[in-house]
Amino acid sequence: MTTAASDAYRVALAGLLRCSEPPIPARLAAFIAVRGPVDAWAAIRNRVAPPEVLDAVAARVGSRSAAELQALAKTDLARAAVVGADLIGPDDSDWPVDSFTALEWIRPFDKCRTAAAPIALYRRGGTWPVDQRGAVAIVGSRAATPYGVHIATELAADAVTAGRLVVSGAAFGIDAAAHRGAMHAGRTLGQAAAATMAILPSGIDRPYPAAHRDLIDGIALAGSVVTEYPPGTAPARHRFLVRNRLIAAFAEGTIVVEAGRRSGSLNTASTAGDLGREVLAVPGPVTSAMSVGCHDAISHHRAALITRWSDAAALLGPLVPAASPHRPGDRQLDGLDLVSCRVYDALPAEGALSVDQVSIDAAIPVPDVIGALSVLETGGLVRRDSGLWRRSADSVATR
Amino acid sequence: MTTAASDAYRVALAGLLRCSEPPIPARLAAFIAVRGPVDAWAAIRNRVAPPEVLDAVAARVGSRSAAELQALAKTDLARAAVVGADLIGPDDSDWPVDSFTALEWIRPFDKCRTAAAPIALYRRGGTWPVDQRGAVAIVGSRAATPYGVHIATELAADAVTAGRLVVSGAAFGIDAAAHRGAMHAGRTLGQAAAATMAILPSGIDRPYPAAHRDLIDGIALAGSVVTEYPPGTAPARHRFLVRNRLIAAFAEGTIVVEAGRRSGSLNTASTAGDLGREVLAVPGPVTSAMSVGCHDAISHHRAALITRWSDAAALLGPLVPAASPHRPGDRQLDGLDLVSCRVYDALPAEGALSVDQVSIDAAIPVPDVIGALSVLETGGLVRRDSGLWRRSADSVATR
Repeated sequence: MTTAASDAYRVALAGLLRCSEPPIPARLAAFIAVRGPVDAWAAIRNRVAPPEVLDAVAARVGSRSAAELQALAKTDLARAAVVGADLIGPDDSDWPVDSFTALEWIRPFDKCRTAAAPIALYRRGGTWPVDQRGAVAIVGSRAATPYGVHIATELAADAVTAGRLVVSGAAFGIDAAAHRGAMHAGRTLGQAAAATMAILPSGIDRPYPAAHRDLIDGIALAGSVVTEYPPGTAPARHRFLVRNRLIAAFAEGTIVVEAGRRSGSLNTASTAGDLGREVLAVPGPVTSAMSVGCHDAISHHRAALITRWSDAAALLGPLVPAASPHRPGDRQLDGLDLVSCRVYDALPAEGALSVDQVSIDAAIPVPDVIGALSVLETGGLVRRDSGLWRRSADSVATR
Repeated sequence: MTTAASDAYRVALAGLLRCSEPPIPARLAAFIAVRGPVDAWAAIRNRVAPPEVLDAVAARVGSRSAAELQALAKTDLARAAVVGADLIGPDDSDWPVDSFTALEWIRPFDKCRTAAAPIALYRRGGTWPVDQRGAVAIVGSRAATPYGVHIATELAADAVTAGRLVVSGAAFGIDAAAHRGAMHAGRTLGQAAAATMAILPSGIDRPYPAAHRDLIDGIALAGSVVTEYPPGTAPARHRFLVRNRLIAAFAEGTIVVEAGRRSGSLNTASTAGDLGREVLAVPGPVTSAMSVGCHDAISHHRAALITRWSDAAALLGPLVPAASPHRPGDRQLDGLDLVSCRVYDALPAEGALSVDQVSIDAAIPVPDVIGALSVLETGGLVRRDSGLWRRSADSVATR
């Protein structure tokens, strides 16, 4: 948890997540927006909400008393805590509000009825992209070929090396390869976290697929594992589609590495397109059924063809320093994007470096380094010194 | 030779091909257009052409006398005849005038200076596409991978099965695979000819590459081998580029199967684009250097992505019966396109068939069968009979 939001607030969010199936119905979302989560939850528990709101939650709320519902919400928080998960909501400083805004914009036009911002998200691990800029989704077929696994791994590693965070779904095949490539690059860079994020179609205490329990634990350490489903929720077909919108929403672009004709990753790509984000696809042998979806998306101009990370980087544009990813323990660096943190880390405690040296040390392109130094300078964390850059004395003392 | 064009006419064309390096300079082309080949050749031989024309031919004409030049031209025709080649020019009925018109349109804008219609073409074999509709070029890297060879072979076979003729350059790799796939399909269909055409960067008596002598002999039997270079001309780097324009011009679309970053096949594709023809490219593994040129063309929207023949067919549109491919020996069918001939052949000498039966027998899609039947009906070769189609009595008698 990143702010001093009250316990009552978190209990209310947990309760509200319990009482409808995501994506949240529009009338319930409107009620929460107007009354705030705490009042909305109280009104629902005590059956004093408007009838259309009570109708929307009736199936899940059932005949439980107000006290039983409150206990259920508290139990969810406790079950999440057992696996090290927080519940993050819109009042938290690192709620990715920009990432989700477009989900509400497209909701009325979403024929699949999967759009809508989440009420809140359970999260293991401390780092996620607070802004879609800086994150890239890498998705694809579960039945990936060795070719696809190789490409997904390389793309993810190159994306992390270039300062991006890789979002995916922890599934077999391409998803797992993307997470693994991202984590490997993160370790090589000496980053403790911020390499990758997995979004689950199930409860935070119910990692799916079960065979990826260790992988998902690793992702929580190397970034974050996230879900909007209450603890204990089983994965289900419709939840994959609903989950996919969050993969698309968290990232400024979605790369499909391999996809069969009806791959779920095409749904993620389609949502990314609806959200106005970049959609990219990797071609493969035309003899491979696992590249059919990619070729189809490219030839129908629903995705741009990329063959390597640099193609994707060119389409995504330069890495713009984003608002404020959560970096627990780095008080003064709180609120800084990952690139700025890496640029800061590249500067020695004493002495000064040129932009080029920082670029090499931080493995971040020069234009991005310049942008980050400007952010750090405004924050009083670094200063110019005869054409070189050094940490400011204040910032060194604080750290 | 398809018309009774005079010997003098052919000698003149042979002489004019001798006296400049293709593509023909604009002032020489204009002189030939105004005076006609016979007069133009006489004026050049006798040094009575305008000075700018004589300048344009000076290097090749040298100090040879009019008689020596005439003898040279006759020798060229004789050398061509030794390998079974005719010389075809604009006065011949199967000169593909439409195919070449666009070469003159783009000539002023052609930075590579390769555009211009040929003066005439040496041709072995009797069948070529008299109109670019109905022909498709399949080109690619000489250093093809097994993947590329496989795809080129399949695409060419499917194209011929669908009634198209495959144009290529007889080079190693993709070109050879395309010719072989086309010939194989042609044999399977029981077609004696009309499967494929090779355009050489060298004299008709000097098949290039030399290791493809047998292949090129086979192509002459299965369609035609063509060049604008006089007999004895050696292949040269610049001649590949100049030759490539004819590959593009003879076809309504060019498919690049595999291409390295600097493959000459990209030059063919680029010319096809300049000519307003379809440019299509096959993707491949992004790990393959031989697919870099294809991916680059697709991602920069210089080529449409195709994964199989049906993609290409959809982009090329239905097979429109063309004007009059040369079919020696089929007097009444002369002037009919290949599809119409195959539809006619599918009808029994006695008895009638439905459109669907003809489609299956001729291995031609139903819409193309309907189009061809309409052409044949207009020509009095077939008639409707209670919803079925039969050959007209006249046409059977004639054959």
